[in-house]
Amino acid sequence: MILPSTLQSARSWISYSLPRGGTAVDATVGNGYDTLFLAEQVGPEGVVFGFDIQQEAIESTARRLREAGRQNQVRLFPCSHHRMDEKLPAEVKGKIQGMMFNLGYLPHGNPEIITQPQTTIEALQIGTVWLAPGGMITLALYTGHPGGQEEADAVVNWASALPPKQFQVMWQQMVNRRHAPSLLVIEKR
Amino acid sequence: MILPSTLQSARSWISYSLPRGGTAVDATVGNGYDTLFLAEQVGPEGVVFGFDIQQEAIESTARRLREAGRQNQVRLFPCSHHRMDEKLPAEVKGKIQGMMFNLGYLPHGNPEIITQPQTTIEALQIGTVWLAPGGMITLALYTGHPGGQEEADAVVNWASALPPKQFQVMWQQMVNRRHAPSLLVIEKR
Repeated sequence: MILPSTLQSARSWISYSLPRGGTAVDATVGNGYDTLFLAEQVGPEGVVFGFDIQQEAIESTARRLREAGRQNQVRLFPCSHHRMDEKLPAEVKGKIQGMMFNLGYLPHGNPEIITQPQTTIEALQIGTVWLAPGGMITLALYTGHPGGQEEADAVVNWASALPPKQFQVMWQQMVNRRHAPSLLVIEKR
Repeated sequence: MILPSTLQSARSWISYSLPRGGTAVDATVGNGYDTLFLAEQVGPEGVVFGFDIQQEAIESTARRLREAGRQNQVRLFPCSHHRMDEKLPAEVKGKIQGMMFNLGYLPHGNPEIITQPQTTIEALQIGTVWLAPGGMITLALYTGHPGGQEEADAVVNWASALPPKQFQVMWQQMVNRRHAPSLLVIEKR
C-alpha cells in the first residue's frame, strides 16, 4: 500500500518539520511509541517534553525510553497537556518544531479515562503559540469510543477557524473505513 | 510551507504509483498541465490517455505537449471520461497505474461547462475497474462554483462506499480555507 495509515502519516509530516537537535512535545505520551519516535527524530542534541495525566502511561513511556537508551532526551510530566505552558521552560516558547496528540483513551488502559474537547482545545491554543514558524502539530482523532465523535468535531471546528495567513490546516480522513482515526495537521507559517 | 497544496499533493501521490514506462489517464485534460506531468512521469516508454469534452481543452493540451516534445506519448480523445471504456485499448484494462481528475470548469474557459456528478461517478466506476492493483486515482474537488459542492459531496459519498478490502480511500481537506479544493485519493489494493 502507498497510502499511509493515520499514525504513519502523522510521523511522516512531523519528520519534515522536526530536525535533528530540535525541540518536540508529545502531548499524550500514552505507551510512549510516539515519544520514542520524537526522541529518535531529534537525536541526542535535541529535547522532547512529554505529558500524560495517567501515571501508568508515564511509567510505561519512561520504561520504553530507558530500554532504547533515550531517557536523557525526554522530560516527562504527569500532568495534563492543557497545563503545558506552566511546565515547559520559557526558552522553548516559539521554538517547538513538532507536537503530537493522540486523542481518546490509553491503549490497554482504562477506556473511561479519555481526552476531553475542552482541555484538548486549550492545549492546542497553547500549542499554536509555543510552536516555531514552520513547526507542525499532528492530532490523531478517534471516533470509535463514546465522546470521540464530539471531540473530533470540536477539534476540527476549532482548527477550521485558524487564520489562514498564520496556519495551514489539513485534515486527512480514510473515508471508506468506519471509525478509522483521522489526522489533523496544523502548520505554522 | 511543508504541507502541499491540493494540486501538488495529487501529483505527489501519483508519482508513487506511476512508474516510468507506465500507463496513465488524464480524465479531464483541461489546459494540459497534468497531462504533461503524467507524460513526463511515464517517459518515452510509457503512454497517457487524455479525455475532455471541450475541443478548446484538447487543442490547448495538444499544443502544450507539442511544445514539450511529448505529443507522441499521449493519445487525446475529445470525449467525456464516462465513455473511456469505449476509447481505451482493451490491453490496458487493469493496467492503469495513475488516473487524475480535476473537476469543475476549464480555467479561462466557459465557467458554465462543468463536470457533472452523474458522469463523474460513472467515469470513476469505470476507472476503478481499469486501474491496476497498486494504481491510484486522484480527484481535485472544487466547491467555489455553482454545483461544485453537490458534486464533491456525491463523489465523496460514492468513494466512502468503496469496499475497504479492495480500495483505500483518503480525503484531504484544507479546512481553514473556504473553497480551497480538496483532494480525494483512491488506491486499489
